[in-house]
Amino acid sequence: MSDSQVRVHNFSISLDGFGTGEGQSLETPFGHAGQRLHGWAFETRTFRRMMGREGGGVGVDEAFASQWGEGIGAEIMGRWKFAPKQGAPTDEEWRGWWGDEPPFHTPVFVLTHHPRPSIEMEGGTTFHFLDATPAEALAAAREAAGGRDVRIGGGVTTVREFLEADLVDHLHLVVVPVVLGRGERLWDGQEGLESRFDIEAVSSPSGVTHLTLTRRPRD
Amino acid sequence: MSDSQVRVHNFSISLDGFGTGEGQSLETPFGHAGQRLHGWAFETRTFRRMMGREGGGVGVDEAFASQWGEGIGAEIMGRWKFAPKQGAPTDEEWRGWWGDEPPFHTPVFVLTHHPRPSIEMEGGTTFHFLDATPAEALAAAREAAGGRDVRIGGGVTTVREFLEADLVDHLHLVVVPVVLGRGERLWDGQEGLESRFDIEAVSSPSGVTHLTLTRRPRD
Repeated sequence: MSDSQVRVHNFSISLDGFGTGEGQSLETPFGHAGQRLHGWAFETRTFRRMMGREGGGVGVDEAFASQWGEGIGAEIMGRWKFAPKQGAPTDEEWRGWWGDEPPFHTPVFVLTHHPRPSIEMEGGTTFHFLDATPAEALAAAREAAGGRDVRIGGGVTTVREFLEADLVDHLHLVVVPVVLGRGERLWDGQEGLESRFDIEAVSSPSGVTHLTLTRRPRD
Repeated sequence: MSDSQVRVHNFSISLDGFGTGEGQSLETPFGHAGQRLHGWAFETRTFRRMMGREGGGVGVDEAFASQWGEGIGAEIMGRWKFAPKQGAPTDEEWRGWWGDEPPFHTPVFVLTHHPRPSIEMEGGTTFHFLDATPAEALAAAREAAGGRDVRIGGGVTTVREFLEADLVDHLHLVVVPVVLGRGERLWDGQEGLESRFDIEAVSSPSGVTHLTLTRRPRD
């Protein structure tokens, strides 16, 4: 059996459980949520470095944020994390939101019903496009990861699908004190999730609460 | 202007925001949620005393739980907190869930479209039945409270109605690490709530997270 874990990190949701708002577009990738779900991350050292900035806190938010890349050999993301829903180039000119050198530095598997040729970016990121079930995508990502862990990068639908398939070992959520009211809700369809996971909560002085769900050993 | 505050205490919700489950009845007042939302409270000194038991923790859960009665002069509760939805006596024999001496020890205003005569219980609790808007009910409760604070006792619908009418000054929620999936959701219709409240979160070793929402000064 593989030791390779399936991990979700720094996944922000509102108090009412929305991981993204309504009305996503090229200009507003998180819809009416704007940057409200991710403000906590922009203050951490890890995210500031990722954006080429100095400074940033080293408290509990950073402690969680920094775990994002450690031991990860591949990422799986949904179509809507890779590209906007509306007002965006849907053709092959679109190469993601992250510029020439995306922060992933590993193979990234994009789940889509409309596969296209792989794109090799600078810095070790290659986008592959797969029309596959979560289990099939995970098999491909694990092979590419060479024994290391696989990160599920979002969005909401993708995380939900992997939870429903019971493929997630480690889920780190960040509950942000806003009530979005509409958008994509993480918890839909997850009734009884707590029976499979040990859940820990720790609140941060920044106002967010970090939730970690650790999959209990499978029988 | 009155200093009398409107407060909600020890209001438990699931991770997905449900304050009660589905299928409420005389035997299952919280539906399929069972006692899962309130297990944290049963371990506190305050609730144990209320149930005639000894012991109980004195940590952060108790610190919050114990604020429940201090300075309160009246409670307002919904019809479904007072009596079960199904399988229960709907006639005048029903005198609440709490036995001859309910733990309120103040006037309690029950919102209902079917008012009935007031019931005086032992220990200072009197149930009054009102067909009234939140603002009207609050006026009646404030008068009965003699300048003290008014507690909104729930259920979910009642708390939501008072939030929507912007009548709540202090809201204490307890987020319990379960995913209920169905029932009555507190956050529905509360988009943007954070613009009116200062929100603080503190996680407890028991696994729950206490959220306090303090109404900002009104203009």
